[in-house]
Amino acid sequence: MLEIGYETLIITHDMMAEGTHYVPGQDMADVAWKLVAVNLSDLAAKGAKPIGILLGHMLGDGDDRFIAGLKEALGEFDVPLLGGDTISAEGARSFGLTAIGRATYKPVPSRTGARPGDAIYLCGNIGEAMLGYEAMRDAIDADSSAYCRPTPLIEEGQALAPHVSAMMDVSDGLLLDAQRMAKASESTFTLDSSSVSQIAPAGRLDEAMRWGDDYALLFTASPKAQLPISATRIGEVQSLAGHYLLVDGVHPSDSGPLGYEH
Amino acid sequence: MLEIGYETLIITHDMMAEGTHYVPGQDMADVAWKLVAVNLSDLAAKGAKPIGILLGHMLGDGDDRFIAGLKEALGEFDVPLLGGDTISAEGARSFGLTAIGRATYKPVPSRTGARPGDAIYLCGNIGEAMLGYEAMRDAIDADSSAYCRPTPLIEEGQALAPHVSAMMDVSDGLLLDAQRMAKASESTFTLDSSSVSQIAPAGRLDEAMRWGDDYALLFTASPKAQLPISATRIGEVQSLAGHYLLVDGVHPSDSGPLGYEH
Repeated sequence: MLEIGYETLIITHDMMAEGTHYVPGQDMADVAWKLVAVNLSDLAAKGAKPIGILLGHMLGDGDDRFIAGLKEALGEFDVPLLGGDTISAEGARSFGLTAIGRATYKPVPSRTGARPGDAIYLCGNIGEAMLGYEAMRDAIDADSSAYCRPTPLIEEGQALAPHVSAMMDVSDGLLLDAQRMAKASESTFTLDSSSVSQIAPAGRLDEAMRWGDDYALLFTASPKAQLPISATRIGEVQSLAGHYLLVDGVHPSDSGPLGYEH
Repeated sequence: MLEIGYETLIITHDMMAEGTHYVPGQDMADVAWKLVAVNLSDLAAKGAKPIGILLGHMLGDGDDRFIAGLKEALGEFDVPLLGGDTISAEGARSFGLTAIGRATYKPVPSRTGARPGDAIYLCGNIGEAMLGYEAMRDAIDADSSAYCRPTPLIEEGQALAPHVSAMMDVSDGLLLDAQRMAKASESTFTLDSSSVSQIAPAGRLDEAMRWGDDYALLFTASPKAQLPISATRIGEVQSLAGHYLLVDGVHPSDSGPLGYEH
């Protein structure tokens, strides 16, 4: 965050590398789109309106597709390319993107503001990127767009900002990100799996809660808050006691990783 | 450039990759320093005062040295780290840095403003990075700091901004960058090699004019301008006629590359 005159700027920088964040051989147009989307999702979680981006681009195969996907994403989200750098280098490729946004509400939502008694909500669904990834991987006749071309919840984030006590985007998995928010807020998050199951693929709840890339917005607010948009109530913030995260009263870490650590 | 309220922000993004921008095995503290310095030099050329940086960092060997060098540079230039991203990936490493600065003078100096009759100046010397590189490469007992730890001319850029018609930093070689500025300004730059030789290593003038990494400030201004700091007058802007760049009346491209294209 950067205070400039009366404005507060939000600036994010996320990278994507071949082999780590995308599959070699994947359509580079999708890679470019996702690079834009993940950064704009960070802005969305701050209730910020995007102003522009800068791209760090390592030249290589599929650059025409990369540029095409970049243009599509910038058009779709109405964000200008302000500048950047292009380099040549050996080895696996990586890309970096800086996104700049203008806070639309102060205080700017953060991860630290959840308070005991707040309700925990999710705006958006989980598990859709998981299904999209499987569709792409197995080349089955299903929609892979949730994985390949995620949509950052930019307008939703701005609408929610005045109402939330804490907010973040779920990029690395609901359980992992919920635990991070609980830790940042020094509280215990108790999630109700039957509520989460309403916004997850049938029969895949546990996986969906540990899968990232959905870019839903996780937020806390007073249970009495009149939310301006639709969101699913999935739990409650409690005073910190033992674990940061409980699902149906049990800490879920023993049954596998909480999410995608990278 | 980004207009925010009454402020104008300058935002730059430069990358460095192993093998392309630095030698494998080079002290990673120097690599981090240089990554900061090259971006701050871009701000200097705009007369901007640095506000902060964001770092895109690919994990690998020497990260402790990288972090040490980053801290040294940020301390030396009094710039905070605002955020960024860290990733793991295979292959040659690359780093990206976004620097944000506040314009101290408007109009913000650009490459396009040189006009016939203006004098051409250089603030700083050329060829020092060349000598520094050779000292490092040959492990001879000479100072390599001009190459390994360049100093962006931040205060000089701010002091000059109100006086210049065009300004840029010389990152890729004097001849190449002077030609770029001439082209952007649709004019012919005529350089006088005997003047340039005053700020270049003895006997190495031609190489020094084609070597980058010095981060001197190239600018144009009225020959009557009272400059607030010391600069060397190296030529004159003329109406575009034939070549964009002449050295002692001759276009220098036939005798080798003008600079470092990457």
